[in-house]
Amino acid sequence: MSYTLAELAERFGLEVVGAGDTRIDGVCTLSPGVPGRIGFLANPRYRAALAQTRAGAVVVGRRDAAGLTGPGLVAKDPYRAFAQVARLFDRNRDFGAGIHASACVDPGATIGEGVHVGPQAVVEAGADIGAGSYIGPACIVGSGAKIGAGSRLEARVYIHAGVQLGLRCQVQPGAVIGSRGFGNVMGPGGWEEVPQLGSVVVGDDVEIGANTTIDRGAIDDTVIANGVRLDNLIMIAHNCRIGEHTAIAACTGIAGSTTVGARCMIGGAVGINGHIQIADDVVVLGRAMVTQSLTEKGVYGSGLPIAPAREWRKTVARVRRLGKLEDRVRRVEQTVGIKTQDEGDDGQEQL
Amino acid sequence: MSYTLAELAERFGLEVVGAGDTRIDGVCTLSPGVPGRIGFLANPRYRAALAQTRAGAVVVGRRDAAGLTGPGLVAKDPYRAFAQVARLFDRNRDFGAGIHASACVDPGATIGEGVHVGPQAVVEAGADIGAGSYIGPACIVGSGAKIGAGSRLEARVYIHAGVQLGLRCQVQPGAVIGSRGFGNVMGPGGWEEVPQLGSVVVGDDVEIGANTTIDRGAIDDTVIANGVRLDNLIMIAHNCRIGEHTAIAACTGIAGSTTVGARCMIGGAVGINGHIQIADDVVVLGRAMVTQSLTEKGVYGSGLPIAPAREWRKTVARVRRLGKLEDRVRRVEQTVGIKTQDEGDDGQEQL
Amino acid sequence: MSYTLAELAERFGLEVVGAGDTRIDGVCTLSPGVPGRIGFLANPRYRAALAQTRAGAVVVGRRDAAGLTGPGLVAKDPYRAFAQVARLFDRNRDFGAGIHASACVDPGATIGEGVHVGPQAVVEAGADIGAGSYIGPACIVGSGAKIGAGSRLEARVYIHAGVQLGLRCQVQPGAVIGSRGFGNVMGPGGWEEVPQLGSVVVGDDVEIGANTTIDRGAIDDTVIANGVRLDNLIMIAHNCRIGEHTAIAACTGIAGSTTVGARCMIGGAVGINGHIQIADDVVVLGRAMVTQSLTEKGVYGSGLPIAPAREWRKTVARVRRLGKLEDRVRRVEQTVGIKTQDEGDDGQEQL
Repeated sequence: MSYTLAELAERFGLEVVGAGDTRIDGVCTLSPGVPGRIGFLANPRYRAALAQTRAGAVVVGRRDAAGLTGPGLVAKDPYRAFAQVARLFDRNRDFGAGIHASACVDPGATIGEGVHVGPQAVVEAGADIGAGSYIGPACIVGSGAKIGAGSRLEARVYIHAGVQLGLRCQVQPGAVIGSRGFGNVMGPGGWEEVPQLGSVVVGDDVEIGANTTIDRGAIDDTVIANGVRLDNLIMIAHNCRIGEHTAIAACTGIAGSTTVGARCMIGGAVGINGHIQIADDVVVLGRAMVTQSLTEKGVYGSGLPIAPAREWRKTVARVRRLGKLEDRVRRVEQTVGIKTQDEGDDGQEQL
Repeated sequence: MSYTLAELAERFGLEVVGAGDTRIDGVCTLSPGVPGRIGFLANPRYRAALAQTRAGAVVVGRRDAAGLTGPGLVAKDPYRAFAQVARLFDRNRDFGAGIHASACVDPGATIGEGVHVGPQAVVEAGADIGAGSYIGPACIVGSGAKIGAGSRLEARVYIHAGVQLGLRCQVQPGAVIGSRGFGNVMGPGGWEEVPQLGSVVVGDDVEIGANTTIDRGAIDDTVIANGVRLDNLIMIAHNCRIGEHTAIAACTGIAGSTTVGARCMIGGAVGINGHIQIADDVVVLGRAMVTQSLTEKGVYGSGLPIAPAREWRKTVARVRRLGKLEDRVRRVEQTVGIKTQDEGDDGQEQL
Repeated sequence: MSYTLAELAERFGLEVVGAGDTRIDGVCTLSPGVPGRIGFLANPRYRAALAQTRAGAVVVGRRDAAGLTGPGLVAKDPYRAFAQVARLFDRNRDFGAGIHASACVDPGATIGEGVHVGPQAVVEAGADIGAGSYIGPACIVGSGAKIGAGSRLEARVYIHAGVQLGLRCQVQPGAVIGSRGFGNVMGPGGWEEVPQLGSVVVGDDVEIGANTTIDRGAIDDTVIANGVRLDNLIMIAHNCRIGEHTAIAACTGIAGSTTVGARCMIGGAVGINGHIQIADDVVVLGRAMVTQSLTEKGVYGSGLPIAPAREWRKTVARVRRLGKLEDRVRRVEQTVGIKTQDEGDDGQEQL
């Protein structure tokens, strides 16, 4: 399988530089590059690599077109154009329709046209698998669950009874959608279970990462809106609502009943409290501790970054004696006759 | 399926307000509420919703009984009473007994009365499944493992050989109980394995969340006591001991050989060092970094919460120059003749 | 199965103290110890236990040989020697060769000599399982994947098509190797997928923990070098490279394209930014926030450790008013005629 630059340009609305009949049979990184394959330049930091690359062609932005020393494609967004080209070479989504002999598909399930159900999979009664979907090996689709057309459950995905996924969703191995929300109430003999009677509703074009868990709602549903991207090992607790096109990086946990707005970018290993609201277009940097609602769009962060352990220990000690340092400053102010503007020390911060 | 308020009141020892023959066929949230269903009011913040709710009835505490504008139930603990009512409508625990044709149950396993073994499940030789248990699809119960009566392994749960679960345990999908503890010793050619010969012993009435992992002990066992509640994506390392009725929220990790007391509440994404002790009745707030034993009951926390990124960067810079600020204060003190009470800067904090 | 101390000494090059015909049939902890079993003393803190132990024998280092009150073995590294002895009693690795009737092994897969393929497992076409490997229940080995001889996939392990594992690897239940890297580009209608065409290449003697996820590379491969030890619930993003004999504790996440050197020790719940380099022999303490490259070997840490919540809230308040404290110190300096050495407040820290 290969394409000429001219074919690629026509297909994706790009501009050819150099020989349009240059054949491309795959993609490569810019450094060192692979002859016959196409690389890309999006970050100006790597501009110097343009001259040295062994790639057969390079996708560049308009500002870098003049820097091409061989054939190339010019795009408004070179990374996106590269992704479009790369998708032509992606065999990870290929599959043949049919139900594997070892799969357990209940006769009461509805299986659309062109669906693949892989080995050891389970599709329970009343489940509805939309046309053209791929249900990989060992996936479990609970009774009454609905998988929108063109979706892909990669392998060993768990979909609880009644959960709904929209069109063209993609779920990575080990993800759990619809586990019991963590609802417990203390009774006289210990914790008692608060039934979790809601479900999970996932919109269209959503990606959910490997071993990520999304709990079902307690009464109402947990909602993942259209176009959301969730990375691996994320926890979405019951009754959260994640807004359209929001992307969340790996290892982030969101406690129950929190609403995240649309088009947010949440970094990795962020922790978000329950019962708060995050506005649209908020960016939260990695490892931040989100203890309160963020009502304005913008970029937010927290945490003390890495230092040599010796310095880190000194920093911890200094932070711990900050109260004493404030006392010392106050005493000096009194001594030199400055009226102290005491900032208070009430610890009533809302955390 | 429906119940009258009078029936519910009798069953759970509650007091009816209004028409006792009001029929309830499900539960709902207070706002907006659903006719024919029952909601609840536990948090006084939502008191105003009582007048507007469309719910058919509301469970309230004694102090809110007078505020009911329609039928209701009065309970000492309205949230708990609501949970009891909701459990009547929970179909998530229904199942029929029997072993699915696709399950692999070794003839040498013991399967109690009324047990369900789902499709694609594996029960190895010598495993013992207590009466009335539900072994969901694709669960694996290793040889010699023991599952107490009335337990529920939701789906794709892994129980290592020899692990013991008590009565009425509930394990969410993807949980791994009895994986190899992370025991390694550096040899001349690299890391060598330290065999993990202990097991995991789980008490009665324990819940374990989705994709949570509990490692087996190195020599002695890892122990999860009666009534413990573990949320999703938690890591319990080898030889930890978690005390009775302790609840741990998602994404928390506990390193090896640590003991957590009874009735503790550990927040989400907390990190707890190995080889430490946490007393009974300790509350650790979310994302805290527990580097040392907590010997007194109480509430603990750590971490710098979220701020706009610009402020956060300034804060980091200020914290990093705290040593210089202390020097400046010292110099001022000397200048004005105050004897410096130097707090030391030895960095010998125990971390 | 039992061994005399003399047999153990000969096998592992140790020195016997006391009766060489003392029989050992298992291992135990030093306190209280179990008659007939062997314990060990590596940490001098537990020296006092030597006199009280009920163990049948104890492995000690040279400096503790004199402290033995019963039979024992003297080793240069007593913990390592104990591990070697314990391995003799480890039944967790025993298995019989053969393919379970319920496994789905494609005729186009290559299965080496003495391989075990457990119940409900899936081995796709073109996969190559090296001799003596154990493929546990419900594991999935994708098409064209290669598992080196003597490897062990414990249970429910997912190996993506084309992924390569070296010799003697060990993968704990629920691990996902080769999930899609989190590559997305914003298009006019929302996030679009950037194909992930690379793979994962895992060296020899690597251990990967339960529910850990390793994403495949975008163009080039994600690489886990020989002898690496990964604990549970770790996230390794696309195109990371983890150096030889590096050990990483549970709940740590590493963002894309980061390189970690050889022989590093990364603590639990550490977060490491993408596109950075960590040198060889770096130790990162648990829960650290690694925002930048660490170019020198050494020990690093970050984070504010646990405190009573009241103190913690005061600390947060004090840190937040550090800017004001600096202003107050400046004003005092001016008042007493000290020239302020302003450290700047530009927030241009590289985070």
